[in-house]
Amino acid sequence: MTELVTFGETMALFAARRTGPLRFARDFDLGLGGAESNVAIGVARLGHDVTWIGRVGADEFGDLIRATLAGEGVHAHAIPDPAAPTGLMIKGRRTADLIDVRYYRRDSAGSRLSPADLDPGLIRAARVLHVSAITPALSGSAREAVRHAICEARSAGVTVSLDVNYRRALWTPEEAGAWLREVVGEVDVLFATEAEGRLIADAEGAEELAAALAGLGPRHVLLKFGAEGAMELSGGVVRRAEPYRVTEVDSVGAGDAFAAGWLADWLAGAEPGQRLATACAAGAFAVTSQGDWESLPRRADLDLLRRPADGVSR
Amino acid sequence: MTELVTFGETMALFAARRTGPLRFARDFDLGLGGAESNVAIGVARLGHDVTWIGRVGADEFGDLIRATLAGEGVHAHAIPDPAAPTGLMIKGRRTADLIDVRYYRRDSAGSRLSPADLDPGLIRAARVLHVSAITPALSGSAREAVRHAICEARSAGVTVSLDVNYRRALWTPEEAGAWLREVVGEVDVLFATEAEGRLIADAEGAEELAAALAGLGPRHVLLKFGAEGAMELSGGVVRRAEPYRVTEVDSVGAGDAFAAGWLADWLAGAEPGQRLATACAAGAFAVTSQGDWESLPRRADLDLLRRPADGVSR
Amino acid sequence: MTELVTFGETMALFAARRTGPLRFARDFDLGLGGAESNVAIGVARLGHDVTWIGRVGADEFGDLIRATLAGEGVHAHAIPDPAAPTGLMIKGRRTADLIDVRYYRRDSAGSRLSPADLDPGLIRAARVLHVSAITPALSGSAREAVRHAICEARSAGVTVSLDVNYRRALWTPEEAGAWLREVVGEVDVLFATEAEGRLIADAEGAEELAAALAGLGPRHVLLKFGAEGAMELSGGVVRRAEPYRVTEVDSVGAGDAFAAGWLADWLAGAEPGQRLATACAAGAFAVTSQGDWESLPRRADLDLLRRPADGVSR
Amino acid sequence: MTELVTFGETMALFAARRTGPLRFARDFDLGLGGAESNVAIGVARLGHDVTWIGRVGADEFGDLIRATLAGEGVHAHAIPDPAAPTGLMIKGRRTADLIDVRYYRRDSAGSRLSPADLDPGLIRAARVLHVSAITPALSGSAREAVRHAICEARSAGVTVSLDVNYRRALWTPEEAGAWLREVVGEVDVLFATEAEGRLIADAEGAEELAAALAGLGPRHVLLKFGAEGAMELSGGVVRRAEPYRVTEVDSVGAGDAFAAGWLADWLAGAEPGQRLATACAAGAFAVTSQGDWESLPRRADLDLLRRPADGVSR
Amino acid sequence: MTELVTFGETMALFAARRTGPLRFARDFDLGLGGAESNVAIGVARLGHDVTWIGRVGADEFGDLIRATLAGEGVHAHAIPDPAAPTGLMIKGRRTADLIDVRYYRRDSAGSRLSPADLDPGLIRAARVLHVSAITPALSGSAREAVRHAICEARSAGVTVSLDVNYRRALWTPEEAGAWLREVVGEVDVLFATEAEGRLIADAEGAEELAAALAGLGPRHVLLKFGAEGAMELSGGVVRRAEPYRVTEVDSVGAGDAFAAGWLADWLAGAEPGQRLATACAAGAFAVTSQGDWESLPRRADLDLLRRPADGVSR
Amino acid sequence: MTELVTFGETMALFAARRTGPLRFARDFDLGLGGAESNVAIGVARLGHDVTWIGRVGADEFGDLIRATLAGEGVHAHAIPDPAAPTGLMIKGRRTADLIDVRYYRRDSAGSRLSPADLDPGLIRAARVLHVSAITPALSGSAREAVRHAICEARSAGVTVSLDVNYRRALWTPEEAGAWLREVVGEVDVLFATEAEGRLIADAEGAEELAAALAGLGPRHVLLKFGAEGAMELSGGVVRRAEPYRVTEVDSVGAGDAFAAGWLADWLAGAEPGQRLATACAAGAFAVTSQGDWESLPRRADLDLLRRPADGVSR
Repeated sequence: MTELVTFGETMALFAARRTGPLRFARDFDLGLGGAESNVAIGVARLGHDVTWIGRVGADEFGDLIRATLAGEGVHAHAIPDPAAPTGLMIKGRRTADLIDVRYYRRDSAGSRLSPADLDPGLIRAARVLHVSAITPALSGSAREAVRHAICEARSAGVTVSLDVNYRRALWTPEEAGAWLREVVGEVDVLFATEAEGRLIADAEGAEELAAALAGLGPRHVLLKFGAEGAMELSGGVVRRAEPYRVTEVDSVGAGDAFAAGWLADWLAGAEPGQRLATACAAGAFAVTSQGDWESLPRRADLDLLRRPADGVSR
Repeated sequence: MTELVTFGETMALFAARRTGPLRFARDFDLGLGGAESNVAIGVARLGHDVTWIGRVGADEFGDLIRATLAGEGVHAHAIPDPAAPTGLMIKGRRTADLIDVRYYRRDSAGSRLSPADLDPGLIRAARVLHVSAITPALSGSAREAVRHAICEARSAGVTVSLDVNYRRALWTPEEAGAWLREVVGEVDVLFATEAEGRLIADAEGAEELAAALAGLGPRHVLLKFGAEGAMELSGGVVRRAEPYRVTEVDSVGAGDAFAAGWLADWLAGAEPGQRLATACAAGAFAVTSQGDWESLPRRADLDLLRRPADGVSR
Repeated sequence: MTELVTFGETMALFAARRTGPLRFARDFDLGLGGAESNVAIGVARLGHDVTWIGRVGADEFGDLIRATLAGEGVHAHAIPDPAAPTGLMIKGRRTADLIDVRYYRRDSAGSRLSPADLDPGLIRAARVLHVSAITPALSGSAREAVRHAICEARSAGVTVSLDVNYRRALWTPEEAGAWLREVVGEVDVLFATEAEGRLIADAEGAEELAAALAGLGPRHVLLKFGAEGAMELSGGVVRRAEPYRVTEVDSVGAGDAFAAGWLADWLAGAEPGQRLATACAAGAFAVTSQGDWESLPRRADLDLLRRPADGVSR
Repeated sequence: MTELVTFGETMALFAARRTGPLRFARDFDLGLGGAESNVAIGVARLGHDVTWIGRVGADEFGDLIRATLAGEGVHAHAIPDPAAPTGLMIKGRRTADLIDVRYYRRDSAGSRLSPADLDPGLIRAARVLHVSAITPALSGSAREAVRHAICEARSAGVTVSLDVNYRRALWTPEEAGAWLREVVGEVDVLFATEAEGRLIADAEGAEELAAALAGLGPRHVLLKFGAEGAMELSGGVVRRAEPYRVTEVDSVGAGDAFAAGWLADWLAGAEPGQRLATACAAGAFAVTSQGDWESLPRRADLDLLRRPADGVSR
Repeated sequence: MTELVTFGETMALFAARRTGPLRFARDFDLGLGGAESNVAIGVARLGHDVTWIGRVGADEFGDLIRATLAGEGVHAHAIPDPAAPTGLMIKGRRTADLIDVRYYRRDSAGSRLSPADLDPGLIRAARVLHVSAITPALSGSAREAVRHAICEARSAGVTVSLDVNYRRALWTPEEAGAWLREVVGEVDVLFATEAEGRLIADAEGAEELAAALAGLGPRHVLLKFGAEGAMELSGGVVRRAEPYRVTEVDSVGAGDAFAAGWLADWLAGAEPGQRLATACAAGAFAVTSQGDWESLPRRADLDLLRRPADGVSR
Repeated sequence: MTELVTFGETMALFAARRTGPLRFARDFDLGLGGAESNVAIGVARLGHDVTWIGRVGADEFGDLIRATLAGEGVHAHAIPDPAAPTGLMIKGRRTADLIDVRYYRRDSAGSRLSPADLDPGLIRAARVLHVSAITPALSGSAREAVRHAICEARSAGVTVSLDVNYRRALWTPEEAGAWLREVVGEVDVLFATEAEGRLIADAEGAEELAAALAGLGPRHVLLKFGAEGAMELSGGVVRRAEPYRVTEVDSVGAGDAFAAGWLADWLAGAEPGQRLATACAAGAFAVTSQGDWESLPRRADLDLLRRPADGVSR
């Protein structure tokens, strides 16, 4: 039985091999990416039964998404939409330190998700529903799908997890803030960076922000500080996690990996401290190699970041 | 002074390096493509002054298009459109013999071309206006732009050239046929494959078809038979050209190259037989290497296809 | 319910990108290959429910095999063997016309397959059991597994299909012939090249050979002539199929594709002539692009080989 | 009207993709490089009208240089020389920290530049003439061209800018020093590293060196300290700039970028402090990606180095 | 006359180009690797006459090994074994900091080395015999070969050098320790990491460990601390070397490079301090570029690590 | 003892991966090429002892040449010239059928070969001296070296072999013809295309040409007709060889391979018919894969071109 249900838009991803302005990039690798499917893969690799739902084009990129997710052990409901193509993501690197992502997702198949695509029985039978605030920014029907899913989950006592994942290409901070304030009261687990948290609540320091957010409803507030680690406020207790010291290769997907690590340990009934540590380790894995989700860890991998200094396993 | 003016949509092009279904293609090269800019480059390489007009996104792909066309010596009016991205073309090879092209051009910058983008003075001062029947299929404003341009050209005595370039991803044969029959009376030079010619006129054999098309207006009717050569009907005289014997690497762009060769020789005042031979040679060059336009010939290259058998120049 | 069950060894495949002696190849692509999993993918793409069983190492290559087959919609029982690594295949191209395949499969996980790995219920509930004569050459336990599976199938009235797939790296013609003669009486569908057929029976021409083979048991004898097409002898009727005219890119996997096409149409209840045509089309697809199985067709693709001459779909 | 005129040798550049001794590099990317054309591109990207003059071979590499510079918006007078080939630059990386550059430029087209190649009217109408001390080391005629251009500029009141750019493959420190001391009195803006400055004047510390150089003529002395920032002495005032903290990918071209940033801001009439900051930012961009000039910033890019920590723009 | 004789298994090496789990690596480079041949190349590049002995398959990979070593100036006795293939090494990078090496060397040609493959005259005429503790872990005959070679060397007064090179894929720490304790009394020069040293002797700190090891026989004990430098205990004197500050690209082969640097300087009669410095410099070179041995220094390269800050040589 | 001595210029070779004008080629592979070293490798692979002599730069490309030839089993006297760089060859493909080669070899190390570089003892002890008419076109000293070597060979009774290898980048047909007519009387074995033969003698048909050439001195005249096979006139007997039917990948080096095949069989004392067949087979191998010499056959490979139709060896 599926323990976690998630949905959203997953896109074909063209990733530039070279650093510099995209117009000089020349060589691209084809893959795929999407915040929710990244989380789905992450949780599945850590041992849980996961379902992802989304619309894809009736095209090669839709097939790529379906095959890749199935190959990763996710139950992938990749609904083919004959009327719109799979969305695209173009990912480059303007400088060694600055990633540049562009989308071709307007009117894409993924943005046409609607409440009817979501099987209520599946949500009601799960333990967690995970959504991101990307989906409501895609289209009116997608926004309805999110509300509908949260409603089903809450009425069945299913835990609701939301990762803010603010995308300025899709909506303004004001629009995002308004929507987030509307739904935050129905959310049990909230993932956000500090800047994202301030779209919802106004507070100076990180702890004050976490408290303000928790005051709006979420039982678990997770604040991510990038290379500076993370913080959790649960049951009135604040926990901080030190970041891992790793060489960063590609920072995209780190937040999704963090969410995956936390949710997997929550599903496994791990202690709060362990949960946060796993979230940080998963986030660290995500940045240490190319690709948004390829390097997500399995349980057996979690120890690798603590390996001896010579860095060679034979 | 610009001798040939053309306009249309030019897109960023992701070309798969591997043969097989696109989802297994893995590696892609970034370039650009567009029927009219292919013609523009082809005519410019053969020694004429050419202007290309089109909308591009205010993005890296738009910059790539502007820089590449300028680098090829085309006067490129690549109007940046802040409200829409540059369109995309994804090009793969399903089998060694079957090219597979997909577009992300709906609501693209290029499709938003409108009559106001076209400087009438530029058209009226040219010797040829070249358009394709791709542009009218892009949007209402683009369709108006074509009519507007043809109207300006005719009123100034500028020769009007039209390449049918039927794209079934954009409109049905019926829609295309209706539009083509509307404009064919205002066209001086018509380029078409046999199948494309039959969208406009109904006739059995190639010569009958050419005659039927000429009867609708065009002074020069060019029918292309792919690897079987081509035919021209001008002033009541039919000329046929044998194809070149070349190893085909990539057939995309061959028709644009043919049009470029013909138009360049027409501008240069070449004899009809020479004109058709140059068109065929240019078309042959286009298929002998990767890329839609990269291998288009210069005057000095035209002899290369007749080189001695050892195929090595040192 | 699974309609076709197959099993065997699937290996990680390093394919050289360059033509020439392998020591100069420099760049390799990682993929996977195995005769039976190629067939499994082919039949699944043509719309049937397929199960593949095999041992893989408890390593990254084993994971790659499991994920790829699952992504292709095959029920993949990729049993991880902690005691042996996944086998390897190195594929190069000595000349443009001569493929060079080497194996690292001695004592591999895949060669350790044994009767206990095969769920008898799965076989007995299927409509076809497909095996190749590669498996008996891998190890004693693998040979027993084949006999065991055929025995289960026959006792349950399941059709038994055998593709000879002679590999001289694994055994001598004499050894192969002895084994084949032992089992051919229990086989319903036999796939072979002429040379392979002569390992079993002695006959001059192709028709005589087919008749001799049919005389040993098989109700359907399929003889493959490579680029010269194929022949089927079923119910005393000989049918011949013309080969498709395609540009050959990589001939490996063509035989597996042929078997997949034939078996899929047999499962679908197609007419004999149609069945043989589908087998040939599938074989043609396999040679038109890189990779052993990547280009295998779906039902909707079967028409592509008959596309119009310009070879471009847009 | 062109604001800045520069000239020199631009070469085709083969850049190794791999780190290690060049003989193991295997894969190379084709591009182009040249100190003065790097500056020309940099100033053009920052919004000014720039002309570059140089000789190239009547070959594909000459065409590449012409097309690339034109594509970058530089007025490129790439004079084809039928008697000599375009020069080459081979760029490798001996270790991750040590770049290895070799030239094939002896008797190249670029080295055959002569005074007659430089249109005096163009220089006299510009606001800045920019030269490097690479050109005088190429040939006698090239050396004369530099003297001639400086002479024209000075007589017309055009500001003369010189970047030392010492190349030990071309001449000895003594030869370079002698030439530099000869011309420094006619230079208004001088760019140098500390070591380069000491080819001209003898002084202990950086400030003393700058003062000594200024004493020889230049109104603006710019000393570059690599990853340690830079210093400017103008009008008796010393300004220092902190370096940007960026991940270095390829240090070649940083000095050219610095000069471009400074000259663009000088042309724009920026304040001295701003001018030096822009120079440093441009230098930082140059090292953050592959290629000698590809990553040079536009005005709108200058802020990117101050982006928030997560380094992802969407 | 050969100054150093070494032997062992050298394998074809497939190195992944991408960072992340091996199953996503896609592109691989073909090369070769083996601890003893790495040392042989390193000593040869530093100017000494070196012989390497080993078995390889009668296949393309064996030819690659023979040609590469010969090309590097090593006298390569690459004995072709018709009965077994050349072993393989697959090298990936799980994260930017963690290299992942897998072997296909069981029953490989290299593992079938036996005493008869070693010409006693060659060993007895050399000045050093260098072995690693990889060889005894490969097979019984290989283990005998090591004992046999050491015996010949000692009886002829040839210095015996041993690098522990513990490989947990081949044997347990207990098995390795037992063998090492057996032979350490016959070793003159011992190379080990601290962890490897503790397989042989039990001691707390590094100096205590070195003393304990020296107490068992070796006149020279070299302890390597990875990025923290190294230590030598010779003639009762402890010397420590600071590591070089270099950007690490690939840590595999660093230990072999260190041994090569030390042995070359020992052969050259360098002072102990110089010897250790050369060992560290060679080790630093090995990590600064891709490949296990490609970047090993020549004498003239040793200064490169002390080059000026701009890192560009022209 | 060396059986064949040859000398000439070998260059680093940058080969474009893509078909089309060189300026769009982007990716290049580094290798090496030179007519005489191609022959040396070819004869060595067919089992004979071969020495190659040439000058190279004291640079990475010189090292690459030395290492590659040594790795191929050729005795390589690659004399490092500190005063000039290794020459370069840039190889592209203008169309699928037309190779484009450019040189950077003026004043290169290789062109500075002089009589003093050639050890007379080596030549006098060999059985064949092989030269090409490229060397006399490189420089005055190189021309003297050829005359000097031929003189030594003849005085010692060593067979002199000359391959015309006309290069129009180096001299005019008249210059080449004059030189060839001067030396042809001292040549025993002459290799030429028909066009090359007519630089020396005037005759209509191939047989007449061969007779005319033989009349000037050579005992063996070999005329190559590219894809049409070859002809030999020896002892008044004309033999013709049919070409092999192979898929051509890269025609460069075919002539060198032909010479290598013939000379190897001549050294082996093969029958004239066999000799010519081996020459043709070697030439066929050379065109079937990328690279000028990489695919040259060994004795055991000669049968591969006659392999069965399925083209797969396992």
